[in-house]
Formats: sequence, C-alpha cells, structure tokens
Amino acid sequence: MIPLLELLAILSTASYGVLLARRQQMDFIGVFSIALIVAFGGGTLRDLLLDRHPIFWVGQWHYPVIVFAVAIVTSLFRKIPAKVEKYLHVPDALGLGFYSILGAGFALEEGTSWFVAALLGVVTGIFGGIFGDVICNRIPSVFRPATRLYATCSFVGCWVFLLLRKVEPLPESVALWSGVVVIVALRLLALKRDWRLPGHEPPVE
Amino acid sequence: MIPLLELLAILSTASYGVLLARRQQMDFIGVFSIALIVAFGGGTLRDLLLDRHPIFWVGQWHYPVIVFAVAIVTSLFRKIPAKVEKYLHVPDALGLGFYSILGAGFALEEGTSWFVAALLGVVTGIFGGIFGDVICNRIPSVFRPATRLYATCSFVGCWVFLLLRKVEPLPESVALWSGVVVIVALRLLALKRDWRLPGHEPPVE
Amino acid sequence: MIPLLELLAILSTASYGVLLARRQQMDFIGVFSIALIVAFGGGTLRDLLLDRHPIFWVGQWHYPVIVFAVAIVTSLFRKIPAKVEKYLHVPDALGLGFYSILGAGFALEEGTSWFVAALLGVVTGIFGGIFGDVICNRIPSVFRPATRLYATCSFVGCWVFLLLRKVEPLPESVALWSGVVVIVALRLLALKRDWRLPGHEPPVE
Repeated sequence: MIPLLELLAILSTASYGVLLARRQQMDFIGVFSIALIVAFGGGTLRDLLLDRHPIFWVGQWHYPVIVFAVAIVTSLFRKIPAKVEKYLHVPDALGLGFYSILGAGFALEEGTSWFVAALLGVVTGIFGGIFGDVICNRIPSVFRPATRLYATCSFVGCWVFLLLRKVEPLPESVALWSGVVVIVALRLLALKRDWRLPGHEPPVE
Repeated sequence: MIPLLELLAILSTASYGVLLARRQQMDFIGVFSIALIVAFGGGTLRDLLLDRHPIFWVGQWHYPVIVFAVAIVTSLFRKIPAKVEKYLHVPDALGLGFYSILGAGFALEEGTSWFVAALLGVVTGIFGGIFGDVICNRIPSVFRPATRLYATCSFVGCWVFLLLRKVEPLPESVALWSGVVVIVALRLLALKRDWRLPGHEPPVE
Repeated sequence: MIPLLELLAILSTASYGVLLARRQQMDFIGVFSIALIVAFGGGTLRDLLLDRHPIFWVGQWHYPVIVFAVAIVTSLFRKIPAKVEKYLHVPDALGLGFYSILGAGFALEEGTSWFVAALLGVVTGIFGGIFGDVICNRIPSVFRPATRLYATCSFVGCWVFLLLRKVEPLPESVALWSGVVVIVALRLLALKRDWRLPGHEPPVE
C-alpha cells in the first residue's frame, strides 16, 4: 500500500505543479520543471538536510518519469477547468499526510530529536509547494492567512506519530497510519469548515 | 561567551524574521517558518556546501526550540511597533559578526582557500535574510543600494580574521574576536554614518 | 580545450549575472553576488544532489576569483549598453552546452539512470539563471513562453550525448563533443529563427 500512496502523492503534487505553471502560461519546459519542483522539492530538501544519498528521485529513476508523463498527458488538454484543483484536494491531502510522516520517520532514523523530526516532516510535506510558489513569484500559499490550515495539520500529525511510537504495545505501523490519518482528516476538515489561523497584524509606525 | 553570542545571533535573526513575516500579515505558521529560515538559512547553506553533517540545527535540537519560543512570545503581542526594528540593530550586527567569522572558520577547517573561506563567511552571515526576503517576494535588502553596508562589513571582517590568523605570536582567539569586532563596528558605523555603496546604473538602450 | 570552454562558460554566465543585477541598480555586492549565483548556481545544485564534494567552486579557488574580476572590471564602466547582451549569446550558448554535458556526465559517473542524467544535465545548465531571476524577483526567463528554446536545447543535446556513448566504435569524446555542438547549434538556431514552445493556456473558470 505504501507504493500506491507514494504514487498518489507524486501524481497529486505534480498535478498541482502543472496547474501552477499553466496559470503563468508557461510552456512545456516550464510545466514539467514546476511539476518536478513541486513533487520532489520537499523530499529533496529533507534528503539534503539529513545527508541521505542518493536523493530519493535520483535513485529511483521511474519517479521523474511519472512526473514527465503527467506533464505530457496534461499538455494534451488545451483547456483545463480551474475547478480541477478542487478534485485534487483529496489526493493532495493524502500526499501531505504521506510525505510528512515519511519525512519524520526518516529524520528519526538519522537520530534527530523529536522536535527536529516533526520539523523535517513538515518540511517534506510543504516545501515542494513553497519552491513552486517562489519560482512563480508568489508569496507561498501555505504562509498566507487566507489559506486553510495546511502546515499545521502536518505538524500535529507528526506529533501524533512521534508520541504513539512510544506507546509500548502498539506496533510502529499503527503510529504511522494514525499520523497519516490525522493529517488527512484535519486537512479535509479545515477545507470543509474553513479553518484558518489568524494573520498577525503588521508592525505599526 | 560563544554560546551567549550564538544565542544572541539566533534571537536577533529570528526576531528579524518575525517582523518580516508580520509585514506580510502571515499567520503563526508563516511567522515561525520565516523566523526559522532567517535564523538558520545561512548556516544551513554553509553546512550543505561544506558537507558538514549533521546540519547545525539538526544536531542541536534546542536551536529550533528557541526560534519556536520567539515566534510564540511575539505572537502574544497583537501590535508590534515598527521601531522595534531599530533596537534590533545591535544584536543583528552581533549576529552578522558572529555568524560570519564562524562560517569562515568552519570553511578553513574543511581546507578551503582564503577567498572561498571569506565567501562562505559572508554566505553564513547574509543568506538567512536573503532566503527570508525571497520567500516574502522582495528583492533581498542586502543587494539594494539603499541599504547601508552589510555584506561588505562581513567580507572585510572575514579578511581581518584570515590575515591576523597568520600573524605568528597572536593566538587564534585574538584573530577571531578582532574579526567579530571589526564587523560589528563597521556595521554600526555604516548605520550611523549612512554609508552605502553606490548603485550601478542599469544597462542603457 | 576543456579549461578554455569552462572559462568561457564562467565568463559568460557571470556577465549575464552582472547585467541582471545592474538592471535592478544593485551595488557592487549585489552585482558580485548575483554574478556568483548565476555562474555557479546550477553546478552547485548538481554537486549537492549528487553528493559530490568539495563543491566545484569550493575546491577550485580561482573560479570565484574569476567572477570577482568580472564584477570589478564591469564596475569600471559607468554605463553598459543593453545590446551587450546580444554579444553574450554565443558564449552563453557555449556555456549552456558545456555545463549541460558536463552535468550529465557527472551524473552517469555516480551511477544514475539516463533520464536522471539528462535531467541533471539540464539542471546544471539552467539553474544558475533561475536562481538569479528568482532573487531579482522575476519569473525565471527559461520558463516563460516568450523565451526562445533554451532548456529544450540542453535536454536534446544531453540525449544525443547519452545515446552516442553507447554506439560501440565511437570514443566517448565524440559523444561528448556531439552533445555540446548540438546544444550550441540548436540554441543559436532558436535565437535566429525565433523558435519557441507554445505557452499553455491558463486554467479556465
């Protein structure tokens, strides 16, 4: 089931990248590049920070080929309805959940503290989108107050995973799946109930 | 005294990140993330370029916790007066001095040439702010001609450190502290006397 | 001949960085930094992704000194005619060709698949310019549909190199030079004949 989730995560993040690039009316190279960056940016940063080599998509050659296929297939559609993005919410939430818990787990394997593991889980889950937004010259959507809870879901789920791992009789897989489920559920609820964090007021003169 | 300076450097760079994020009216996640990026971005890039692992804040779990505390505490204040930034000038100059010399010293340890060591000192000192500005969709303030000398102070101080290290009878610590003092003094003088480098004229048609 | 080409690649990418920074009326520090980032950004990302250390410009101290010299020399000219950029097209195409094939070759040495090697060739060739554009708050020019073929030339040339390497009687150097020549020729033809990829239409409501 892990490979299926991983595939879903790549497909949904790559699709988000395609939409992002098309909003800028980019050409095929732009679409493919932004899709790659959104799909692999977070995991790449995690692997660099943890010194894990080969970087996950360098070692698994079919990963970038999947993104290439997404870029090719979507290019065949001259028009893409904007509401497609809405249908991406579920796989995107799955991607966030899966990438985050995987990132936190890899960090623990390298012996980091819990707090750093939770941070690296969030980094894995959200930095692909941040890189894509920055390249498209937008303030990253995860940081804008208009955005429904996103990084927060990842952070909470990572802690659920980290704490349940220490509950003696539970097998690790329960902790792992609980973390994923919490992230996905929180994210979908945040979208449905319109949960946001309040924006801070800017510094005043 | 090193830990105290390090703490000051983290506190001041994190506070600068908080102000930057609030100017964009970001929510708590945005404030915490930008504070982390500004505080740790330069040192992280240095560690990646020099292949030093674990990355300094991955290995020292209390560092990101300090930034988390800064983000929490500042969030309790609904309004922050813009002039707070002025009071950050001194710890910020200390942070620049300390981070720069530390970066140059780490580079020498890895056997780089002097020129590259000075560059990596500057990178350590300034790239946190650059990453923060880029994510907030601004041209990095260190590169704008309206900015008082900043990277230049770091570069000059790194060379003072590199040259004094070779003066025989002096212990290394004298070179180190001289470098820090030169950077801090130059930066504070530049702010007071309004020292800038002239901006280049744009290409003409 | 390799060192000469490498020198040309550094000179032309650094000069592009100088023009980019001057368009923002940056000061000397900005000009030098952007020149460094444009000249070394792609190769640095490649070295990090492949875990090659020391990073190429960290190990070869004269490389950043060359960029420093370019920044100094161009600073002596108060005005730079915008059409200089036109004269940079040939060395820039050479730089793209050389950096791309070098990147693909390094990737193969580390045992990556062909597809990943071609990707890393393109990354080496184009990411310096992408980093420079992002820092200058512009959508990277390689991703805009108004841009004549650029990344595409690099991708095609990398595949020529990868395929010719497997043709038995040919020595590796033939494959290498064919790749470079294809990239340079395609890029210069694209500029002359105004070849572009069509931009995708944005998502519709």
